[in-house]
Amino acid sequence: MAKELKKLDELFHDTLKDIYFAEKKILATLPKMSKAAQSPELKAAFEKHRGETEGHVDRLEQVFKIIGQKPQGKTCAAIVGITDEGAEIMEEYEGSPALDAGLLAAAQAVEHYEISRYGTLRTWAEELGHEDAAELLEETLEEEKATDEALTDIAESVVNQEAEAA
Amino acid sequence: MAKELKKLDELFHDTLKDIYFAEKKILATLPKMSKAAQSPELKAAFEKHRGETEGHVDRLEQVFKIIGQKPQGKTCAAIVGITDEGAEIMEEYEGSPALDAGLLAAAQAVEHYEISRYGTLRTWAEELGHEDAAELLEETLEEEKATDEALTDIAESVVNQEAEAA
Repeated sequence: MAKELKKLDELFHDTLKDIYFAEKKILATLPKMSKAAQSPELKAAFEKHRGETEGHVDRLEQVFKIIGQKPQGKTCAAIVGITDEGAEIMEEYEGSPALDAGLLAAAQAVEHYEISRYGTLRTWAEELGHEDAAELLEETLEEEKATDEALTDIAESVVNQEAEAA
Repeated sequence: MAKELKKLDELFHDTLKDIYFAEKKILATLPKMSKAAQSPELKAAFEKHRGETEGHVDRLEQVFKIIGQKPQGKTCAAIVGITDEGAEIMEEYEGSPALDAGLLAAAQAVEHYEISRYGTLRTWAEELGHEDAAELLEETLEEEKATDEALTDIAESVVNQEAEAA
């Protein structure tokens, strides 16, 4: 069984490095998004999520420990692309009433990337018999889903407010 | 009201170009993923989704028409990053029993990107009063969610089969 599981082990480790890089990138990006946001509700949501993201980084470091590896990131082209699109929105829609709607869209793209990654990692952790790691990944997965839902609620109210103010 | 809605209109149009580019990129990538997949179940899922993706492109062209615009793509850095990661997996895990697990992870990252984009676009279409467009976007959104769920089921069975074969 060594060969098969070793390969899934490697894939798990590679993907862990990918999301570790992504979480650190998000940690660096959230303050910029919070600063750019116009609605106090959205600013608060980004700040809250920044705190949660610190917790996600901590959990990932625990998972690295469980599999006997040192925490290490690996450039994640997906999150680079997603955050580049967000940066473009901030630039192109600066001062526009649609800026918050654009920031929300960018943030939800980030959340969905994370939801897919944590769902995958949790399934693999279970299969590899790392129950503790699976639980940690599940906790973060639930927080990412809750953040996405909170952003959907804000998106609906932000867009309505814009329409009413128009 | 012209100014505010014009801005959201522009954001809607920009994001429509982004997902139009993404769908075309996915259409070009799915045959490669289907060819690489080892499990017949996963091959079939990629082939089925290829057919659905053609329908998504058609619906987007209808949405462009509804807003009086010509269908046009705009490079979407996010999908480029996500598919680059998928290509890397195909290369690095060629011949490995973990290849299908990696392909599934890549495909679910794509699905989640689309789920976030279609959710955003549907909300904006409703707000902009494009009810027909909102319905088209909702139809695709539901198909993307169903695909993601189907991939989750396959992911669990693929990983289990690997473990049993080991």
